[in-house]
Amino acid sequence: MNYKVEKLKVNYKTLEEFKKFKEYGLQELSMLEDLEANIIENDSESPFYGIYFGDKLVARMSLYQVDAKFNRYFEPAKDYLELWKLEVIPDYQHKGYGTALVEFAKNKNLPIKTNPRVKSKDFWEKMGFSSVTYNVERDLGENPLLWFPEGFSEHSN
Amino acid sequence: MNYKVEKLKVNYKTLEEFKKFKEYGLQELSMLEDLEANIIENDSESPFYGIYFGDKLVARMSLYQVDAKFNRYFEPAKDYLELWKLEVIPDYQHKGYGTALVEFAKNKNLPIKTNPRVKSKDFWEKMGFSSVTYNVERDLGENPLLWFPEGFSEHSN
Repeated sequence: MNYKVEKLKVNYKTLEEFKKFKEYGLQELSMLEDLEANIIENDSESPFYGIYFGDKLVARMSLYQVDAKFNRYFEPAKDYLELWKLEVIPDYQHKGYGTALVEFAKNKNLPIKTNPRVKSKDFWEKMGFSSVTYNVERDLGENPLLWFPEGFSEHSN
Repeated sequence: MNYKVEKLKVNYKTLEEFKKFKEYGLQELSMLEDLEANIIENDSESPFYGIYFGDKLVARMSLYQVDAKFNRYFEPAKDYLELWKLEVIPDYQHKGYGTALVEFAKNKNLPIKTNPRVKSKDFWEKMGFSSVTYNVERDLGENPLLWFPEGFSEHSN
């Protein structure tokens, strides 16, 4: 399936659509407040990417490039992508939207870290992600999963 | 209500009881593997605290002291406690077990950070926790909540 992944702009329409997603939290609330208080402009860049079905947002994820100096997961240290809030709204699940978003992230050719909040291990395994060796000091309550681009050393701490 | 909060030891009984809790993840699996492989000893210390009803574990949390040098939440930088996996099993909810665990953490007189995974804002507000100003680079997909001991500067980044 060939879906068009778009970088989402911060505006009232996008933020209204975000309310359909389960993982609605401080990040979205903060964007809404910043927009209302004119701290950010309408149509500002956001760390969200999404796929529309018609004019309806049906899948989204957040993607942020973490600077190598904050890297605690990959060796040698290198910028990596943190991926979170990957979610497809119920009627559109199992149609390849989630896969399309993850493939989009992989095409940036940087290692990826994610910390899925829901039970989705099978999905992430299929996408080539693997668990880290748990380290309480680093991982605390997280269940980090990592993906490595081809040719990247698969050694993680 | 006066409940006895105990530091939990890593052993097969504890790990079996952990399976009753929803937030069972890499941390628990890793403890189990380490125990099976004799990497850690039976009855090793864990970062978990819990409350028993009879010989049944009915509430638990994880608590870890984060070194001031990794502090990104409190100013001035100071050691703080990360609290996660606070959970009470269904039949024992709304009886003060969760509150007892959080009060136990507060009595250590360090600032506390938590990132609740479930919708529980009312509970945390009642416990005196407040939201941070969201910062994408620091918080990514988290919804951090902070608590400050008396006399501690309430300034956070």
